[in-house]
Amino acid sequence: MQIPQWNDVLEAHSRISAWVHRTPVLSCQAINKIIGSELLFKCENFQKVGAFKIRGATNAVLSLDKALTENGVATHSSGNHAAAVALAARNRGIKAHIVMPETSPRIKQEAVAGYGADITFCTPTLESRESTLDRVVSETGAAFIHPYNNFNVICGQATAAKELLEDSGPVDIVMVPVGGGGLLSGTAITVRNMRPETRVIAAEPENADDAFRSFKTGVLQPPLIPNTVADGLLTSLSPLTFKITLEYVDDIICAGEESIIRAMRLIWERMKLIIEPSSAVPLAVILENPQIFKGMRIAIILTGGNVDLERLPF
Amino acid sequence: MQIPQWNDVLEAHSRISAWVHRTPVLSCQAINKIIGSELLFKCENFQKVGAFKIRGATNAVLSLDKALTENGVATHSSGNHAAAVALAARNRGIKAHIVMPETSPRIKQEAVAGYGADITFCTPTLESRESTLDRVVSETGAAFIHPYNNFNVICGQATAAKELLEDSGPVDIVMVPVGGGGLLSGTAITVRNMRPETRVIAAEPENADDAFRSFKTGVLQPPLIPNTVADGLLTSLSPLTFKITLEYVDDIICAGEESIIRAMRLIWERMKLIIEPSSAVPLAVILENPQIFKGMRIAIILTGGNVDLERLPF
Repeated sequence: MQIPQWNDVLEAHSRISAWVHRTPVLSCQAINKIIGSELLFKCENFQKVGAFKIRGATNAVLSLDKALTENGVATHSSGNHAAAVALAARNRGIKAHIVMPETSPRIKQEAVAGYGADITFCTPTLESRESTLDRVVSETGAAFIHPYNNFNVICGQATAAKELLEDSGPVDIVMVPVGGGGLLSGTAITVRNMRPETRVIAAEPENADDAFRSFKTGVLQPPLIPNTVADGLLTSLSPLTFKITLEYVDDIICAGEESIIRAMRLIWERMKLIIEPSSAVPLAVILENPQIFKGMRIAIILTGGNVDLERLPF
Repeated sequence: MQIPQWNDVLEAHSRISAWVHRTPVLSCQAINKIIGSELLFKCENFQKVGAFKIRGATNAVLSLDKALTENGVATHSSGNHAAAVALAARNRGIKAHIVMPETSPRIKQEAVAGYGADITFCTPTLESRESTLDRVVSETGAAFIHPYNNFNVICGQATAAKELLEDSGPVDIVMVPVGGGGLLSGTAITVRNMRPETRVIAAEPENADDAFRSFKTGVLQPPLIPNTVADGLLTSLSPLTFKITLEYVDDIICAGEESIIRAMRLIWERMKLIIEPSSAVPLAVILENPQIFKGMRIAIILTGGNVDLERLPF
C-alpha cells in the first residue's frame, strides 16, 4: 500500500480547486472563553454538497483514466461521500451509481438524487453495503471509488487541512473526527509536511471507538455495529487509513454522546453554524478533557452541515 | 426631527468599529439557482449578541455625555436590542436596565442576564413595555435608549449596509426586514449616499404589516397586536423612522408566514446558517414575487441568529 506524499496532495489541490470552495476559517470568542483555548474552525459545512467529501471524490473522479470512466463510477456511503461522488461524476459528465443504507438521512438521499445519480438502497451494515456494491459494479462495470480506502480520495481530503493551516498560521493541535479515516489520513499527511511540530489528534465517539481501539492495540479492529448520534462516523478504518493513522497521528480520544450533543448545540447557538453531529466530536473531546487543551491554539475541521431538521438531537 | 446625514454614519462607524465584528458577505449558488437572481447575504447573525442591534446600541451608548451615564441606561426590547444595550453598557462600564416581554425567547433572556443587566419583565404589548420602562426610568434615573426612534441608534444600524455595499460592489436592490424601522432607516440613508441608483426595498410579514400600510397611506398607522413567526418584527414605525422611510425607501412588500418559514428553512438547509425567522422575510418576499427580482443582483442583511432551538417553526 502506497502512502500519499506531499506532492500528491499539492497536485490534488491544483486538480480540484476549480470544483470546490475555499471555505472560511471562523472563531468564536464565547466558545474560546468557555474552553480556555483558542479554537479555529474550518467551515467545510459551507463546502459544496455540504461536506469536505467533495474534495476526495472530485480528486478521485478527475484522476481516473478516461477509458475507466465509460461505465461511470460507483460507491457506497451513508450520505456525504455519496453526494460528493454524484456531483463529481456529474461535473465530469459521467454516470454515478450509489449504494446507500435505507436509514440514511432524507436530506442526503435527496441530494444524491438531485445530482442525477442512480441510488440502490441496502440495509445499514458494512456487509450489506459491500455485497450490494459488488452487485452494482458487476452489473454496470462502473469504477468503484471507495469512500476512504483510496489513495486519491485521501489526497483530496488532505487539501482541507492545507487550506486551514495556510489561513490559521501556527497552531499547537489540529483535530478532526475519525470514521473511516480518510479525512484523518489526509490531514495527518498535510500537517506532517506543513507543520511537523503540530500535533494531530483524532476525535471519535465512544460508541463507535474502533479506530481508538485499533490505534491503541496496533491491530486493525473488526467493524462494530455502532450506535452514535454522529451518523457520519459509523465506518471503520481500512488497511490504508489504519497504516497512515499509525504512522502519522499523535492520538485518538473518544467522547460520549452527551458531550457530542452539547458541543453541537454550542456551535449552533454561539456560532450560528449548522453542523452535523459528527463535526462536533472534536469540540466534545475538548469539553471532556479541558486539562489537555487549556491555553492551546487548536484548529478544527467542521466536516459537514447536512442534518435532517426534523430529527435534531435537542 | 433631525434625519441623520452621511457624515453622522461615518462618525458612527469609526466610533463602533472596535466593538463590533465586520461580518462576512456570503452567497449560495443553490439558492441563486432557485430564485434566478444573485443574492448577497450580509451575515449579521455572526455579529456580537447575534444581531445587528449591537451597532446602534453601541453608537448610542458611546455617544452619551458622561454626565448622562451615571445612572446607567435603560430600554425595552423583545430581545436583540436588549442584549445589545446590555453589552454596550457593560463595554462602557455602566449599568443597564432592560424591560423585556415575558414571552421573549429564553435564549435572549439568558443573553441579557449574562451581560449583567437588570431585567424587568412586562406583558407583551407596546403599552405595557412603555409604562414599565417609564417606571424603571423614573426609579433609576437611567438614560432611555429607544430601540429605533433614536438618532444615534439609526446611525449605528446604518453601518451594516455601509460594510455590505463596500464588500458587494454594485447591486440593483438592497433588502432588509422592517419592524420598528431602525435598520431600514439606517440602510436607506447609507444606500442613498453610497449608491443613489440602488433601490431600497423593505420586507415585512403580512401579519404585521403596519409599516406597509403607513408607507402606502402616508399616515403613520397605529400599532397592531401582530401574530407572526418573525418575532423580531413585532414593533411599529416611530415618527423618526417613518419620516426617513417615506423620504428614502423605494418600496415595502409583505410576505406570508408560510413563505417566511420556507425561506428560513432554505437558508438553514442550503447555506448552513442559523438565522432568526425575521431575517428570512426578504427572501420570503423574493420567493413570492419572482417576477420583480428575476436577474437582479440583490444585497440582503441577515439581521440575526438568535432562535430558541426548542421552538423551531419546522
